[in-house]
Amino acid sequence: MAKEKFAVGIDYGTESGRAVVVRVRNGEELASSIVPYPDGVLDERLPGGPPLEPDWALQNPRDYLHVVEKGVPRALKIAGARPEDVIGIGTDFTASTPLPVKSDGTPLSFLPQLKKNPHAWVKLWKHHAAQPEANRINEIGRERDEEFIRIYGGKYSSEWFFSKLLQVADEAPDVYELTDRFIEAADWIVWQLTGEEKRNSCTAGYKAMWVKGRGFPAPDFFGALHPRMRNVIGTKVPETYYALGQRAGGLTPYWAKATGLRAGTPVSIGNVDAHVAVPACTVTSPGSLVMIMGTSICHLLLGKERQMVEGMCGTVEDGVVPGLWGFEAGQSAVGDIFAWFFENGVPEYAARDARKHRASLAQWLEKRAATLKPGQSGLLALDWWNGNRSILVDADLTGVLLGMRLATKPEEIYRALMEATAFGTRQIIESFESRGVNVENLFACGGLPERNHLLMQIYADVTGREIKLARRLQTCPALGAAMHGAVAAGREAGGYDSIFDAARHMAQVQKLTYRPRREHHEIYNKLFTEYQTLHDYFGRGTNDVMKRLKTLRGEVTTKARVD
Amino acid sequence: MAKEKFAVGIDYGTESGRAVVVRVRNGEELASSIVPYPDGVLDERLPGGPPLEPDWALQNPRDYLHVVEKGVPRALKIAGARPEDVIGIGTDFTASTPLPVKSDGTPLSFLPQLKKNPHAWVKLWKHHAAQPEANRINEIGRERDEEFIRIYGGKYSSEWFFSKLLQVADEAPDVYELTDRFIEAADWIVWQLTGEEKRNSCTAGYKAMWVKGRGFPAPDFFGALHPRMRNVIGTKVPETYYALGQRAGGLTPYWAKATGLRAGTPVSIGNVDAHVAVPACTVTSPGSLVMIMGTSICHLLLGKERQMVEGMCGTVEDGVVPGLWGFEAGQSAVGDIFAWFFENGVPEYAARDARKHRASLAQWLEKRAATLKPGQSGLLALDWWNGNRSILVDADLTGVLLGMRLATKPEEIYRALMEATAFGTRQIIESFESRGVNVENLFACGGLPERNHLLMQIYADVTGREIKLARRLQTCPALGAAMHGAVAAGREAGGYDSIFDAARHMAQVQKLTYRPRREHHEIYNKLFTEYQTLHDYFGRGTNDVMKRLKTLRGEVTTKARVD
Repeated sequence: MAKEKFAVGIDYGTESGRAVVVRVRNGEELASSIVPYPDGVLDERLPGGPPLEPDWALQNPRDYLHVVEKGVPRALKIAGARPEDVIGIGTDFTASTPLPVKSDGTPLSFLPQLKKNPHAWVKLWKHHAAQPEANRINEIGRERDEEFIRIYGGKYSSEWFFSKLLQVADEAPDVYELTDRFIEAADWIVWQLTGEEKRNSCTAGYKAMWVKGRGFPAPDFFGALHPRMRNVIGTKVPETYYALGQRAGGLTPYWAKATGLRAGTPVSIGNVDAHVAVPACTVTSPGSLVMIMGTSICHLLLGKERQMVEGMCGTVEDGVVPGLWGFEAGQSAVGDIFAWFFENGVPEYAARDARKHRASLAQWLEKRAATLKPGQSGLLALDWWNGNRSILVDADLTGVLLGMRLATKPEEIYRALMEATAFGTRQIIESFESRGVNVENLFACGGLPERNHLLMQIYADVTGREIKLARRLQTCPALGAAMHGAVAAGREAGGYDSIFDAARHMAQVQKLTYRPRREHHEIYNKLFTEYQTLHDYFGRGTNDVMKRLKTLRGEVTTKARVD
Repeated sequence: MAKEKFAVGIDYGTESGRAVVVRVRNGEELASSIVPYPDGVLDERLPGGPPLEPDWALQNPRDYLHVVEKGVPRALKIAGARPEDVIGIGTDFTASTPLPVKSDGTPLSFLPQLKKNPHAWVKLWKHHAAQPEANRINEIGRERDEEFIRIYGGKYSSEWFFSKLLQVADEAPDVYELTDRFIEAADWIVWQLTGEEKRNSCTAGYKAMWVKGRGFPAPDFFGALHPRMRNVIGTKVPETYYALGQRAGGLTPYWAKATGLRAGTPVSIGNVDAHVAVPACTVTSPGSLVMIMGTSICHLLLGKERQMVEGMCGTVEDGVVPGLWGFEAGQSAVGDIFAWFFENGVPEYAARDARKHRASLAQWLEKRAATLKPGQSGLLALDWWNGNRSILVDADLTGVLLGMRLATKPEEIYRALMEATAFGTRQIIESFESRGVNVENLFACGGLPERNHLLMQIYADVTGREIKLARRLQTCPALGAAMHGAVAAGREAGGYDSIFDAARHMAQVQKLTYRPRREHHEIYNKLFTEYQTLHDYFGRGTNDVMKRLKTLRGEVTTKARVD
């Protein structure tokens, strides 16, 4: 038997990182080690520092290193993998999660004089305090008819790279001036591991206005945003980007020692958690929509040509796999809505009965909701508890529940909420198909499909499409990262020459699939028509009641604080 | 000191009857005795008999006699009132609550051969199984342009007199033929007590198409409904009706013995529970809207002239007090919506914390909801959990809750539900005022105002009107009944010559009133505009999604039963 080769994947999530060791031959996961970030999400105050404003969300870059130090050796030990058999390392990260660093890669937050300045820290993807900056970017972008407006389906998000950098320029000119490089954590961690600042084209394309072969907007655009930013490209932000799966460099001696791996072990270019999951679900060609389902859903789809689809988060050439366009869409709350309901809307008698039957509240509700037929509750919901990411791209929209009677039961509401999120996904699919981007079947990974079988059946019934599941639902991005590590190693080293080859060998789906039931699909067609009518009525300006309620809420809350 | 005189009031509710003894001089309540109906509401099966169809709700007329036998002697004893000092008896009843009887007043349900036939029993106001009959009445009424269509704001209800009689004719021709008289329980109890079948003009006007000075629709109309009913007027339904407060007759020797009162004690003409509450709230002139607030709200208003107001339940001359037009409107669920929420929508942590603080769930929620400012929750609801009675008169409408976020809390939802019912009342007020029927201030009685102070303040803030409360909130109808008893006795016997005189002396309001706060009213003006937009969008045909969901629910549920 030939000696087995292994690849390491490191998946950086919101609250923790995960290191896996997989067998290169078949993608089998031999070990998985989760390392929570010691400082977690900093959304109330800096460690030992001042309180943060609302909507802020920071992280400590030291935590990312901590994941490598703790997670990789533990995973190697569990897997029983020898260093010389580990042929490559891949990483993936939340995005856009940028930080300001010195020219040698040192985060500004590591500098004693800046460690109490929030702008010196990592701005996590869900840092939402740069909305005024995003508004300015969109306004100026539209005035100048910049291409990025179309790439991002009409709107650049407050969560993204230049909104966050502009916020630094606006609010902390001293930090801005001390910043030699402003960099995605996805690229920073690779720089740390290899000593090479080689940035990935995926985050640049999806989050930072970069277009393959054309680069960034012109200095006039950045100058219009802020005089300090006129020459940001080529200084704080470089012009060169590298394709996913390329070799960024070899592991440095320092990190070799820290992890127990060999110095020089190939490390792949950085990547994004959702995007790396696509080949890990076996998907490397058009027609299959991959849903990473958790608190929210990220939807990724491959296409042969560029198409501007309403409400996309981005359309990037080579953005997921080489040679194809990667389309990204999303729903801003899915699992989060169910969690809200479990916490705030389920009565005591249900909680008691669930305990009596040794079931979780979710199981208790699912069991009852599963006995209902589509349409039987008479309820219909709009799944906008956290706004609408795709296709309306509007954070000010809010949730609706319609059809309540005195006989309405909690399991009926739960089912209506599940159905509403499925209608949200169908709306995204129909938006793709209206522009000729085909969606034949669905793939799912993430935490939700593991827990909630009824949800998956509802998605199949609502969309009328079969849903396949990744072999390992929770560690799909980590596998994807390891696959890119195997590609960075290359075939000669026992890896693969392309992500297509890696996917063929390393990615698998489960035997269990969810198939749509015709009878249910027909009823859901009717309900989806109703959903669409309300979606357009409340979401496209016919009745902006949600925005007016939000404005009023803001005024009243501010006044209540002053009083 | 002149010898004190007393009046007895008997108030027939849905689940129980109540006898009170009040001082005629000042209306002071000396005793109150509640007697639950032994058979309660028969909505599942007849006693020892067959199961009932869905939507049926029957009662046993013997229970009404039981209230007199038990309640009156007990109240007299508590009050220490001597029979010779009781100058009059008044009653009030739910309506329309009719029953079929023989020519001597014997209910058909007392006959051995009919006691297992549901159609021989009392059809309680909330018997909803005559909807097909109501539809036919409305269709034929509209075709023939019958006046009752306008009197009832455009629609005759399935709850009312002729819908129920037509259901008997349709479904039980044998019972129909054996029926000598079809009579409101309000009139039947007076017949029992006095031996006189003298019917009141209030139920005839509000529930049975009767118009003062013009009588009923022509035989052609009734013949078009059902051939058997062509000559119903003058046979099963008499042509003569008596004004409220008139003397129907004297107490019979049998009932004198059963109650301990003197034979011949004057008994007033029958009356309706909500209507009798109006003078008991001190209201005997135009401009004051009386709200009887409980599971639902009944609104009554007096006017100087006839006006056709959208969505009224009825407009009847002398229908509440002589010489004025009585307008009736209503909301089909108010306290019922809150009860639904407490039971089905409040999470366990709230129930636990309420117990810890020895508070009811309602108190716990009210305390927290009271700290919120109008508009602060960002929520808006449509209060249609049991359809909409006024002004849309549409049982197929359903509830809506809009504005949910991941941070939405149960007390915010509770407040939004309270506000929605207040908007419903304001919609009724605006409907009145749009036709020139003035509403200057509000009066409230019933169970809700006693329990829920925040609710009352919200009603004041939403409507921009002061709300006064009846002295005794729960026994307001019973006092009104006793006041009519005092009027039936007349001034020479120590009573009063008119309900106006009786109200001046016997009715009082509390010192506590709820005054609108300008700042809150202004915010509610904005929210009410949003409510109206949604009200019209969902309620007036722009988007009939609620009806389509109901139809679908019916189809799916039927199919699920068959499967």
